[in-house]
Amino acid sequence: MIAKTPKPPYYAVIFTNTLSNITHGYQETAQLMEKLAKEQEGYLGHESARDSLGITVSYWSDLEAIKRWKNQSQHLIAQKLGKDTWYQSFKTRICLVERDYDFGLENS
Amino acid sequence: MIAKTPKPPYYAVIFTNTLSNITHGYQETAQLMEKLAKEQEGYLGHESARDSLGITVSYWSDLEAIKRWKNQSQHLIAQKLGKDTWYQSFKTRICLVERDYDFGLENS
Repeated sequence: MIAKTPKPPYYAVIFTNTLSNITHGYQETAQLMEKLAKEQEGYLGHESARDSLGITVSYWSDLEAIKRWKNQSQHLIAQKLGKDTWYQSFKTRICLVERDYDFGLENS
Repeated sequence: MIAKTPKPPYYAVIFTNTLSNITHGYQETAQLMEKLAKEQEGYLGHESARDSLGITVSYWSDLEAIKRWKNQSQHLIAQKLGKDTWYQSFKTRICLVERDYDFGLENS
């Protein structure tokens, strides 16, 4: 679903990844991380899609919120498991959203 | 494929979308737009994934390059066709990439 984010400026974390062939535990952990992220202060929304490439974009109020989520204890464990097992490669980009516009969204 | 972008700062355009049920001509136009974008001055790379949601992130050297691409003549036609037929909804976010880090990528 397209995230309903507030007016810019806010932050985006673009997480692009390819998976290894070891998928055991990945879905459960991804779902738990989604739940935990939503509980974080400063979380604004997220969007996710996967075919041969996975792209997850999460939106945050500020850099401090991103830093707190990066260092959240269960997320730290998930990040280590991700590097050790599930991800073949990834790239994370921290971005300041300066402008946005949309089409066909309700309440926008 | 994960885009090989230069060191930040640079710009990202996050284009999140859902498709309508009218798909005629979409793939061909998407492929042509990808080809034309790559020829633009300031184009740095792009990443794309789709399941129920489509996410395409394109990377650019600066805001001027984004503006030129937005106003490129064939791209203008494609944008109109997109609104009129292929897209049910979309959101475009223009972002300054401030930092990035990666894992498992060659030559990084």
